[in-house]
Amino acid sequence: MTQSIKALIFDVFGTVVDWRTSVAQYVAPALAEQSSKCDPLGFADYWRERYDPAMNKIRTGERGYLALDDIHLENLEQTLLHFKLDDIFNSAQKAELNTAWEKLAPWPDVITGLTMLKSQCIIAPCSNGSIALMTRLAKFGDLPWDCILGADIARNYKPHSSVYSACCDALRLQPPEVMMVACHNDDLTAARESGLATGFVPRPNEHGPNQTINLRAESDWDIIAGDFVDLARRFCNL
Amino acid sequence: MTQSIKALIFDVFGTVVDWRTSVAQYVAPALAEQSSKCDPLGFADYWRERYDPAMNKIRTGERGYLALDDIHLENLEQTLLHFKLDDIFNSAQKAELNTAWEKLAPWPDVITGLTMLKSQCIIAPCSNGSIALMTRLAKFGDLPWDCILGADIARNYKPHSSVYSACCDALRLQPPEVMMVACHNDDLTAARESGLATGFVPRPNEHGPNQTINLRAESDWDIIAGDFVDLARRFCNL
Repeated sequence: MTQSIKALIFDVFGTVVDWRTSVAQYVAPALAEQSSKCDPLGFADYWRERYDPAMNKIRTGERGYLALDDIHLENLEQTLLHFKLDDIFNSAQKAELNTAWEKLAPWPDVITGLTMLKSQCIIAPCSNGSIALMTRLAKFGDLPWDCILGADIARNYKPHSSVYSACCDALRLQPPEVMMVACHNDDLTAARESGLATGFVPRPNEHGPNQTINLRAESDWDIIAGDFVDLARRFCNL
Repeated sequence: MTQSIKALIFDVFGTVVDWRTSVAQYVAPALAEQSSKCDPLGFADYWRERYDPAMNKIRTGERGYLALDDIHLENLEQTLLHFKLDDIFNSAQKAELNTAWEKLAPWPDVITGLTMLKSQCIIAPCSNGSIALMTRLAKFGDLPWDCILGADIARNYKPHSSVYSACCDALRLQPPEVMMVACHNDDLTAARESGLATGFVPRPNEHGPNQTINLRAESDWDIIAGDFVDLARRFCNL
């Protein structure tokens, strides 16, 4: 089956990079400077929890397309308000804090796995992050993408079907020639509904040690791998 | 000045890759098999000459956006007709010939220069080629782009101003923070009109030994370099 697959497209936040630890580490010094009692991991979690509801307004058409960079900044305002830190940072400092999302560490297996896969087919992010955000994140983490796809191409957000279709169209490939890789079962459900092949890699610590969701594959995805190196081995051998 | 530049975007056909020799070499065996007297370089030239008039219908709004891959295929039909080869190749063979544009050799200085520049800022193509075409061309020639920008992002063709603006917007940069690099003076004129910085690199053999246009910089572009390595040195030192 994988012989007919010409491109692998990847969820990024969670699947490729450890956003939670990275965001916490990035904001920690700024929070400490303010003598804040706020836990940086709790700050990162609260910030991230605002992500899906904000995108949903765009998926449903309630709001026009807005890049994730802007959504992150809006959600940062809410997060600062929640932690009673809203009067402390000026606009420039908030914009600087918002660049936390451009500096997320890849999981340890990612670069080796992506490099193996890149020798076999096209690899690209299919993230809800913008082209600008994904480009800066790739430079930060040396992610060897062949191109940047995702929400910006579709001007809509996953799991809306238009995002998966737009990525296939941009590569001039049919959906069965493209495999979506993610650690989130709902992302793969949507990709499969759009006709793409599917690959699952668990990230049981995406949300920290008490994670309860997406601990395992919840369907018969085309590849179910342990990590990106295992994914590459399975993909290259099939 | 270059300290404020965060991204370099590049014309590709001519500036980065030697399309003429590469296309000629790619089609030569197929032409020879047909005992054609057609000169492969002449075939490449004729094919390429159809490029600008076809795009112009899209720039003027006479025709909706069509990816360059499709324009190349239409122009291949005209080229085959011109050389009385139109009945010889079937659809699959024509589609295969059309992939010539995905297999163009970079000029010898390109990889070294781009690698030097990539350590300093974002580098991306701003070509009239589609994301699909530019992605495959990058894989063929090991071009180390950070992302793929260009006509597909704007759904219009250079030198229409919307293409330069769309590239800056995709990177969330202001036009003066982006430098357009090209071997074509008209491309730089249009980029400058859109507020971008400009870099010129001559490619005096793009059209072969009898080239008469774009032999030298025709304005005071921000950088005028001998080749991509010289461009990188000048960019990094300024």
